[in-house]
Amino acid sequence: MTATDRVRAAIADRRELVNDAIAEQLPVEHPERLPAGGEVDVLTAAVAIEVIQSFTLIHDDIMDDDDLRRGVPAVHREYDLETAILAGDTLYSKAFEYMLDTGAPAGRSVRALDELATTCTEICEGQALDVDFEGREAVTTGQYLEMVEFKTAVLYAAASAIPAILLGADDETVEALHGYGLDVGRAFQIQDDLLDLTVTSDALGKQRGSDLVEGKQTIITLHARDHGVDVDGLVGDDPTAAEIDAAVERLEAAGSVDHARELAEELVESGKRRLEVLPQCEAHGLLGDVADFLVERGY
Amino acid sequence: MTATDRVRAAIADRRELVNDAIAEQLPVEHPERLPAGGEVDVLTAAVAIEVIQSFTLIHDDIMDDDDLRRGVPAVHREYDLETAILAGDTLYSKAFEYMLDTGAPAGRSVRALDELATTCTEICEGQALDVDFEGREAVTTGQYLEMVEFKTAVLYAAASAIPAILLGADDETVEALHGYGLDVGRAFQIQDDLLDLTVTSDALGKQRGSDLVEGKQTIITLHARDHGVDVDGLVGDDPTAAEIDAAVERLEAAGSVDHARELAEELVESGKRRLEVLPQCEAHGLLGDVADFLVERGY
Repeated sequence: MTATDRVRAAIADRRELVNDAIAEQLPVEHPERLPAGGEVDVLTAAVAIEVIQSFTLIHDDIMDDDDLRRGVPAVHREYDLETAILAGDTLYSKAFEYMLDTGAPAGRSVRALDELATTCTEICEGQALDVDFEGREAVTTGQYLEMVEFKTAVLYAAASAIPAILLGADDETVEALHGYGLDVGRAFQIQDDLLDLTVTSDALGKQRGSDLVEGKQTIITLHARDHGVDVDGLVGDDPTAAEIDAAVERLEAAGSVDHARELAEELVESGKRRLEVLPQCEAHGLLGDVADFLVERGY
Repeated sequence: MTATDRVRAAIADRRELVNDAIAEQLPVEHPERLPAGGEVDVLTAAVAIEVIQSFTLIHDDIMDDDDLRRGVPAVHREYDLETAILAGDTLYSKAFEYMLDTGAPAGRSVRALDELATTCTEICEGQALDVDFEGREAVTTGQYLEMVEFKTAVLYAAASAIPAILLGADDETVEALHGYGLDVGRAFQIQDDLLDLTVTSDALGKQRGSDLVEGKQTIITLHARDHGVDVDGLVGDDPTAAEIDAAVERLEAAGSVDHARELAEELVESGKRRLEVLPQCEAHGLLGDVADFLVERGY
């Protein structure tokens, strides 16, 4: 059984549980459940993270003027701009309501809320950098990785660290999980950039090579530019599959695809090493599998 | 000295303090000030409320497609849509960061955060109702007042109640201040609707009678409609000052202006009565003055 198989099995096991938790939470306007005696409801914290992710996707789709999300029309297309802004804004505060509703002692809740609020601010800073980079050529790999850290990886870090905070883990454990999230979150984004070039349009749910067409900076194009490839001239506005194949071959020849793959794998290994301070158990193993899954996944 | 004079004097006294607090906070990306021993920094909570207000105005201006805010271009006009969405989203989480940074004990911080998060959700619900009402004729006064409660008054309630929560006041005090905020917040909105009809365009910073031109439902137009006035036919798309004068005379003749004025004054008196459980002191007097100011103000 590969890491991907184990992660998919774990997701299948938990999917119903998580969906039930989201369904149970979302219609509740003002949760009034009292903290159960000493028990912490980590699943409600997971709902909070998922709801933040949804809010950012809804607002990002407006900013990027994207038509589709997960194969269905984006909220601002299915409804309108007002509805999409408001849906995002509502989910934003609902996430904080959920994070306050885990039944954790107040001191831990405050730490978890602080982590969530800081994370949201960083996600906005990352999105601002991303918007800014679209109009610039001279982006360094370091700047790109910082943008990815803020836009994407900090939410992985929050998702990894917050359950530990709520359950009262020591600082070493919380920091290890936070660092794990930052590493594997960056690896996830680099893998996303790779998949955009290497997976068929059908499997992606969007056009293959769309990053090249849109002139989006990725770790692959940044490496290629540094190694003399005329990235802007690789494809036209409406390239054929053969033209994209040729462009990918140029990027492979420049070593840019391998460079990205190696960087993603290094980040996954780094993330797994950070877990070494945690006791060996099923959850520890699953976190390792999740890290592997993020770079093994084909879509 | 009238209530308005006293409130203006109190604001003048405190403006520098509040501006300093905002200036000190806003450049700080990750506040790391430690809670001072037992002291609660209520001013930082005030900054959080003000920042939430700014976030809602920036996003509302996008939704209402307004060009001006406080006499200067709205953020989405001065910059662009992406910047305005992101500016609002960033202020949103910054507000939660500030509210976590008052130095209050964790239990009180959790209550304050809960109040803030619930308030934000309600503001979004109120804005959604407001957008919805624009396309509808059959809005009742009760529905309108509910919209105003959610869109506007809950932030007055949060601003009134949260300092008491952070300072460890008893439940009776917190609830009295919360109720006071809801009452005077609704009075504020009704006064805003009145000013739109009765104050010159220069003093308003926007066209007098703009609510009539835009077909916006207010407590005045709802009353007039209920009393046989053809509200939709009162003014055309680009009315002269004389046409607006004539429209206002029609609304006055139907008793709609007096109705709104009486309702605002009743709400102010109700708000002040709620404060009776609080000890007599300078702050108590000032809250009464603030309530009077909200309906006495000329712009």
